[in-house]
Amino acid sequence: MNAFIKTIEAIGIITFALTGIFEARKKEMDLVGVYSLAMITAFGGGTLRDFILNRHPLFWTAHYWYPIILLGLSVLSSVVIKGMLHRSGFVTFILVLDALGLGSFSASGTSLANQFGYHPFVSALMGVVTGVFGGVLRDIAGNEIPYVFQRTEIYATCAFAGAWGYLVVMRVTSNDVIAVIACIAATFILRMFALRYKIRLPI
Amino acid sequence: MNAFIKTIEAIGIITFALTGIFEARKKEMDLVGVYSLAMITAFGGGTLRDFILNRHPLFWTAHYWYPIILLGLSVLSSVVIKGMLHRSGFVTFILVLDALGLGSFSASGTSLANQFGYHPFVSALMGVVTGVFGGVLRDIAGNEIPYVFQRTEIYATCAFAGAWGYLVVMRVTSNDVIAVIACIAATFILRMFALRYKIRLPI
Amino acid sequence: MNAFIKTIEAIGIITFALTGIFEARKKEMDLVGVYSLAMITAFGGGTLRDFILNRHPLFWTAHYWYPIILLGLSVLSSVVIKGMLHRSGFVTFILVLDALGLGSFSASGTSLANQFGYHPFVSALMGVVTGVFGGVLRDIAGNEIPYVFQRTEIYATCAFAGAWGYLVVMRVTSNDVIAVIACIAATFILRMFALRYKIRLPI
Repeated sequence: MNAFIKTIEAIGIITFALTGIFEARKKEMDLVGVYSLAMITAFGGGTLRDFILNRHPLFWTAHYWYPIILLGLSVLSSVVIKGMLHRSGFVTFILVLDALGLGSFSASGTSLANQFGYHPFVSALMGVVTGVFGGVLRDIAGNEIPYVFQRTEIYATCAFAGAWGYLVVMRVTSNDVIAVIACIAATFILRMFALRYKIRLPI
Repeated sequence: MNAFIKTIEAIGIITFALTGIFEARKKEMDLVGVYSLAMITAFGGGTLRDFILNRHPLFWTAHYWYPIILLGLSVLSSVVIKGMLHRSGFVTFILVLDALGLGSFSASGTSLANQFGYHPFVSALMGVVTGVFGGVLRDIAGNEIPYVFQRTEIYATCAFAGAWGYLVVMRVTSNDVIAVIACIAATFILRMFALRYKIRLPI
Repeated sequence: MNAFIKTIEAIGIITFALTGIFEARKKEMDLVGVYSLAMITAFGGGTLRDFILNRHPLFWTAHYWYPIILLGLSVLSSVVIKGMLHRSGFVTFILVLDALGLGSFSASGTSLANQFGYHPFVSALMGVVTGVFGGVLRDIAGNEIPYVFQRTEIYATCAFAGAWGYLVVMRVTSNDVIAVIACIAATFILRMFALRYKIRLPI
């Protein structure tokens, strides 16, 4: 079951990296720009989480194959992705993976903060921060107002709901694995609904 | 007297949050954007201060009611503030509170760095960073050149002057409370003069 | 020999500060903006390096004369630099110093991460981050897409090559000073070639 969660986390990192790569290609950046945005997007949220929780070494410096994989992905992207970018099926595929990644990152932030003994509300915020901050940095680096701050289909809200899913299930079952799955499921389902039915928050 | 300082600090956090909320509303962000900018603005300076001084847990994760109050404020803002935004009296009111907040944040950064044994110049810088960094992040998140970097009525300079006020009074009296009050008073008075007489730095 | 490396580092800090000052003047910022961008550019990379490696106190809070020198430089810049800005010889001079600074920052990041026992790939990344992050922050603060993410003459790539130069020479000689010089030389020469022959990465 732990392998299941590791797989979801890896999916999250790779999908987040892909959204960074797309942004970089849209802005016609070279390989350095592509790789930088891949790393910023994939590692940004977890890095801020580790800074706030004072966890060292940072997860991506300890798991050094993550930055290496992202370099490979950045190089490959110039060959493979080009043709895919304009297929709407591919965009949908990315949105689905991204929702899984959001849920997994939210779970990791909430779970760690909860273990460290933070108040549930702060733990839930930590889940959201872990889930969305990479994308915020990606958009700032691309000189745009961050996507999550704009009024579109709910995104951070899904991560927040998922975080509370984790906390409630954890309180009831005391089982971290089940709680993580609940968080990912809640985030994912809510996000899919939001995309399908264009659910937005009122201004 | 400690309650007095706590009150000023709370005023600072809430006013800074309000300026984030205004910025978010101007950019037509939804509740997530409003809440994010409220938190970034109110907690950004103190978070960077705590990172630099290696203080853990961060102040807003320890005082978990701060983020909760800011969420309430963000929700309320859609009902209450709308009508107020265009009254010039309200803007003046915010500017006055903001100057108090700036002074209180500058005092907290300077005081902590001084206690940690940093050089007075570094302590004064830490006061300025604590006072202005939240606003810098707010403006970057809103995709604008930060207000404090632009040539307008002096702002960071007031925090810097206030920080030196703290350090001098602390050296003379060894009384933290009096020094904090001196810092807030110096920052506040200078800022009010700057706004009243349009005092700017030369280019 | 250690004095040699210290000198290179000081050159790096001052040159990076100068590029921040230029950016600030181009955007017509006042002294506060000029000083802020000088500090952000000169200290940004080393600060992120110290945060990631969990080194405290931060280098520029321990060496308090660095921020003081930068303040002096910011004040002086309004008098001295104005006339120089438009001489092409001066711009070339800055580009040469900047390449030295980039190499020295890359060496410091790689060397420290390597000492802390990180994987060579992560150590090389740390060199790049230390070398380029200050400039990234400078550009974001000036509301532009960071220079290093755009497709221009290779820059981060030079720091990356220099970092590997450090690691290889360190492995062979176990002499930190020689390895640092190798890093600076590799970075500098590659950067000079890149500028001279307009070497860019393909998109």
